Amino acid sequence: MAELVGNVLVGQSGGPTSVINASVAGIISEALNHECIEEIYGALNGVLGILQEDLIDLAAESQQQIRALKHTPGAALGTCRYKLKKQSDYERVLEVFKAHNIRYFFYIGGNDSQDTADKISKLAQQQGYELRVIGVAKTIDNDLAVTDHCPGYGSVIKYLATTVREIACDNEAMGQGDLVSIVEAMGRSAGWIAAGASLAKRRDHPHDPPHIILLPEVPFNQEKVLDDVRRVLKREKYCLIVVAEGLVDADGNYLAADAATDAFGHARLGGAGDALAEIIEHAIPSAKVRVAKPGLMQRSAAHCASKTDVDEAFLAGQAAVQAAVNGETDKMVTLVRGEADHYTCETGLAPLSEIANGVKKLPREWINEDGVSMNFQFLRYAQPLIQGEVVLPHDTGVPLFARLDKVRVDKSLSPFET
Amino acid sequence: MAELVGNVLVGQSGGPTSVINASVAGIISEALNHECIEEIYGALNGVLGILQEDLIDLAAESQQQIRALKHTPGAALGTCRYKLKKQSDYERVLEVFKAHNIRYFFYIGGNDSQDTADKISKLAQQQGYELRVIGVAKTIDNDLAVTDHCPGYGSVIKYLATTVREIACDNEAMGQGDLVSIVEAMGRSAGWIAAGASLAKRRDHPHDPPHIILLPEVPFNQEKVLDDVRRVLKREKYCLIVVAEGLVDADGNYLAADAATDAFGHARLGGAGDALAEIIEHAIPSAKVRVAKPGLMQRSAAHCASKTDVDEAFLAGQAAVQAAVNGETDKMVTLVRGEADHYTCETGLAPLSEIANGVKKLPREWINEDGVSMNFQFLRYAQPLIQGEVVLPHDTGVPLFARLDKVRVDKSLSPFET
Repeated sequence: MAELVGNVLVGQSGGPTSVINASVAGIISEALNHECIEEIYGALNGVLGILQEDLIDLAAESQQQIRALKHTPGAALGTCRYKLKKQSDYERVLEVFKAHNIRYFFYIGGNDSQDTADKISKLAQQQGYELRVIGVAKTIDNDLAVTDHCPGYGSVIKYLATTVREIACDNEAMGQGDLVSIVEAMGRSAGWIAAGASLAKRRDHPHDPPHIILLPEVPFNQEKVLDDVRRVLKREKYCLIVVAEGLVDADGNYLAADAATDAFGHARLGGAGDALAEIIEHAIPSAKVRVAKPGLMQRSAAHCASKTDVDEAFLAGQAAVQAAVNGETDKMVTLVRGEADHYTCETGLAPLSEIANGVKKLPREWINEDGVSMNFQFLRYAQPLIQGEVVLPHDTGVPLFARLDKVRVDKSLSPFET
Repeated sequence: MAELVGNVLVGQSGGPTSVINASVAGIISEALNHECIEEIYGALNGVLGILQEDLIDLAAESQQQIRALKHTPGAALGTCRYKLKKQSDYERVLEVFKAHNIRYFFYIGGNDSQDTADKISKLAQQQGYELRVIGVAKTIDNDLAVTDHCPGYGSVIKYLATTVREIACDNEAMGQGDLVSIVEAMGRSAGWIAAGASLAKRRDHPHDPPHIILLPEVPFNQEKVLDDVRRVLKREKYCLIVVAEGLVDADGNYLAADAATDAFGHARLGGAGDALAEIIEHAIPSAKVRVAKPGLMQRSAAHCASKTDVDEAFLAGQAAVQAAVNGETDKMVTLVRGEADHYTCETGLAPLSEIANGVKKLPREWINEDGVSMNFQFLRYAQPLIQGEVVLPHDTGVPLFARLDKVRVDKSLSPFET
C-alpha cells in the first residue's frame, strides 16, 4: 500500500449528540500521529460547508479546545440535514476536495450521511482521484446496521434512566393513587431510546419505575394501556410511563395525530406525551397527569454522559484515521462487542453501502410479553453502554464547553451556486 | 431555659426538591447530638401522616441511608398538599403529639406549610403543651419572605442553566436562521427560576443564550416578543427562549389559556411553552420551533444539584434542631447572606407568621430594560447559589438514592376520621 500524502477533512451531519464531538477529537488527535497527513480541516455544517468551500483549520485550534471537544455536546463544526441530490453537487464536492488536496474524508453521521459518503467515494474512484473515505457512526437512535451500537446512544439512555429514577423519587413522595407521570423519549420510529429507560429499574425489581414503556414496536392499544395504568396506580400509588415519540396504533398512525383527529378534534398536539396525557385524563378523571418532554435536552445532556460512550466515540474517531492511513476506504467504523462475559468493545469496519441501506431494529424477543417492559437480553445489551460518569470542568457553576476559533481556510474556487 | 426532654417529629410538605431530604438528614444528624432528644420520628406524607398517626422511626434507619438522603431527590418521608382546615384537625395533631411525647416538631416546606406549623405551635401554647416548632424553608420557587434564598432554588437554576448551555450547543450546530428553541421553566407566578437560566451566559457576553427570558413579572407582549425573536434569528441563526410557566399578558391572563381561547380556538394546551411555540410558528412560518418541557425533571435533578444548595439545606436542618434545643419556637430557619464581597451564608430565624403571610418577589430593578434578560444585580445574587457539584454514588450506571426502611411507630390512638 503506497502512502497517500494529503489533507484530512472531517464533517458532522444530522442531529447532534452528546458525543459526536468526541469523535472529532479522536480524529484530530490520531491524525496528528501520521506524517502522511498534512493539514486537518473541518467542514462547517457538513456537506453544505463542503459545497460552499467553508472549511476551517482544525490544527490551528488550541489543544485545550480539542481536549474540551471530548465532553462538549452539539456539533462543534456545525451540522446539516442537507441531502446531496444532483450529480453536479457531487462533482462540486470533488472539486473542493481537489482544490484543497483532501485525501482523507471522515464523515460522522447516521445512515443518510454514510450514504452521502459512499457516493462521494464512488465518484472519486470513477474520476481516478485517490481519496479515502471512512464514516464514523453517530446517532442517539441506535438504528445503524452492522455496528453493535452507535456512539450517542449510551449517553441518551443514561440520561433518560437517571431522569426516570429521579422523577420516580418525586412521584413516590407525591402519589396518592392518582399521579401519572409521562416522560416522552426521542427515537423516531424505533424504541431503542424508550427501552433504555428500563435501566432505571433495580435488578430483580420488575415493579420499579418506569412501570410502563410504550414502544413504537408494540402497537398502541388504548384499553390495554388504561388497564395497565389503573393497575399500577393501585399497586404503587403513582404510575410512571415512558412513551416513545414515534408511538403508533395498529394501523400505523402516530398517537398524537390519532388523538388530534379522532378522539378530541384538536388540530395540533405537542406530541405523544401530551396525546397520551389527554387520553388518560379523559378515561381516568381522578388522575393528575404530568408530562415531561426533555426534547433536545436528552441528546445534548453532556453533564450526564456515559463515559463508556464518550470513550467509544473518541476511539471510533481514532480508528477511522488508522483505517484510512492503512489504505481502507468506503467503510464505516463499527463497534464490535467482545464475546467475553464482561463487556469489551473494539472497532471494526463495514462497507458504507451496507450501513446506508440497512437499519437495526429493536429485537421483538427483547420485549417482555406484557409489551411494556424489557427483558434480561435487553438489559445485558444496554447496561454496559451507560457505565461511568464524565467529570466536566465548570465555569461559575455551569459546565464549560469547547468553543472553536474556526480559522477559515482560504477559498480558491468560485462560489457555489445551487 | 429549662431542658425540654422528649421526641422529635419531622415532616415534609409541598412539592419535592432536589435537596429537601438533605434538610431531613441535617435534622437527624444534629438530633443525635442532643441528649434531651429521645426518639426521632418522621411523619409520612406531612400533616396527613400526623393526623393518621403514620409515624416512622428514623433512628432505626441505617447510617448509610441517612447519609444517602443528603443527595436523594423527592421527599423521602412522603409529602402532601393537604391543608389543615378544621379546629378538630389541629386538635388531632396535638393529640398525636401528646401520645408520642413529641416536643420538637420540624416542618420542611413553603409558606403554606409554615402557616400550618405556626397554627400548631399556637394551639400548643394555648393548651399549655410545651412544644418547640421550627420550620425549615423549602421551595424551588424561591418566593419565601425574609430568607435571602430558599433551599432547592440553587439546584433548580443550576440544572436549568446547564440545560440551556447544552441545548445551545445543539441549536448552534443546527441553526440556519430558522431554529427557535423554547424551554419551559417552573416557578408558578414568579420568575425566579426562569431568571436563573441567565446564569448560562458567560460573563460579558450578553448575546449568549438564553436570548430571551419571558418572566411573569413582565406582561407578555406578542409583537415585541416576535420582533425580538426575528432579530435574534438574524443575529445568531437560532433563538433560545426560556419561558416561565406562569407567563401572563397585560390583563393577567395566562399565555396558554389566552392562546387557547382567543388566538387558535384550542380547548387545551400543554403549557406556556407550547402556546408560545404556536404563536411563533403562526407568525414566522419559516421557523422550526422545538419545545423542551422539563417539568418535574427540574425539581428532582439531583444529578445536577448545586453543592452549595445541598450543604445549605443540610445546614438549615441542623440549625433547626440547635434553635429548638436552645429554646426557640414558632420560627423558621432562614438563610442569611454575609456582607463580604465573597459569598458566605449563615442561618437565622424569623417568626413563622412572617413567613406564612409574606412573599418575596423578583425585584423589578434586577430585570434589564429589554424585559427579557437579567442584570448584574441578579447575577450577583444568584451565581453563588449554584456553585459546586455533587458526586453521586452510582449503581450500574444510574444514581443510587436512599430508600428508607420506614419502620412504623406503634399507633396508640383511635383511627383518624376526616
